[in-house]
Amino acid sequence: VVNWFRRERKRADAPRLRTRASSKTASTRVDLADLTPDLTTFLGKAAYVQLMIFENASRVVATAPTTEAKTILSDVAGYALAKHQGLTEEIERHGGDAAKIMEPFAREVDAFQRMTQGHDWFESVTTCYLGAGFLNDFFLRLAGGLTTSALPRILAILEAESGEKLIAKELLSAIEGNPRLAARLALWGRRLVGDTMLIARWTLGTTENHDSDEARIEPVFTELIAAHTRRMDALGLTA
Amino acid sequence: VVNWFRRERKRADAPRLRTRASSKTASTRVDLADLTPDLTTFLGKAAYVQLMIFENASRVVATAPTTEAKTILSDVAGYALAKHQGLTEEIERHGGDAAKIMEPFAREVDAFQRMTQGHDWFESVTTCYLGAGFLNDFFLRLAGGLTTSALPRILAILEAESGEKLIAKELLSAIEGNPRLAARLALWGRRLVGDTMLIARWTLGTTENHDSDEARIEPVFTELIAAHTRRMDALGLTA
Repeated sequence: VVNWFRRERKRADAPRLRTRASSKTASTRVDLADLTPDLTTFLGKAAYVQLMIFENASRVVATAPTTEAKTILSDVAGYALAKHQGLTEEIERHGGDAAKIMEPFAREVDAFQRMTQGHDWFESVTTCYLGAGFLNDFFLRLAGGLTTSALPRILAILEAESGEKLIAKELLSAIEGNPRLAARLALWGRRLVGDTMLIARWTLGTTENHDSDEARIEPVFTELIAAHTRRMDALGLTA
Repeated sequence: VVNWFRRERKRADAPRLRTRASSKTASTRVDLADLTPDLTTFLGKAAYVQLMIFENASRVVATAPTTEAKTILSDVAGYALAKHQGLTEEIERHGGDAAKIMEPFAREVDAFQRMTQGHDWFESVTTCYLGAGFLNDFFLRLAGGLTTSALPRILAILEAESGEKLIAKELLSAIEGNPRLAARLALWGRRLVGDTMLIARWTLGTTENHDSDEARIEPVFTELIAAHTRRMDALGLTA
């Protein structure tokens, strides 16, 4: 959509923003209000994204190599499903039909899901960890720009447990003592963050002034990428 | 395992028990107490079966043709997951490790899952409807034989909503006006009930007296098959 993104897409390694600018702006809470979609669009996109996160987690439940992994990942799937259901209830509370409201967003999110599903179980689990982690952070951040009396409820849904630590533990035990897997998942993590930023960018609205939009978005993405890097660090992977 | 089952497996159409015997015994509540596994085994098998039902439902969420179907089926997946989680909490309440306790049952249930997963989306959804329906009935029936102070909690978990009506509605709208699909799903339903009875039989214990075991089991299965037939009827399919 925008220059900033085109620039990042061309880079082979993880997106890294200009450190000077980011260190300056990250300290002040950036306001995404102008770019926050209307409440219905926000809820529709967030609900469909949580449904996708649920589907991804369910897929790795079904193919998990051990019963223990199944149990952990089914909890993770349950957390995403609870968020999805909380958000669709919120849509219905405002008189909307959840399926109809999510429908226009299905194609874009489904395409993202296909791109990021991974080539094997470990890559898929990494998507559940890093991709979902990024999107959870993003929607929580974006919700701050909503002006609605439902905000406390919406924040409670988005802030709820997502099982991130559980997946990290599962992945870490697979990576430890397997440097080839670690290297492969580090590469996968870098690719993931690029695709995930694109779907996050798609979620945002735009104003007439694209340059100003990008100036607002950049520091937010810098924060989100920092959180992504911390998630990679937790696995001992270089972002 | 037993004659009764071997007999049923050889039949091409839906199992039908001797009506005389069943009409006599169905009116008196048959006691499965002798064949009810110990509490831990019961909870482990029931929890793993609900995890399988959850996985099956999740698979059809991920491949659902419409957003509306996704929404409905994700509710169904959520109901099975809630049962699974309720049962694993019950295991942990009794000091057990859920993954370890389910582990010995994984191979048998996984094999059943592969056999019954269906060749396309509609068959898979039919499995979510008929297979899960049968197993939900079965475990609820079997729980009656448990002697534990936890029984009210266990019954509450097993009796909770499973979304059966939601799936039936979804299937019915696909079948209506599509006699070829109806015929195919009728065949699938007949095959399913045979496989499902085998996994149900596997769940039961045995005593020294196999003939007496079968005499106890037969009327229970007659009831379960009657419920299966009602589920088929609800779709306009002949069992």
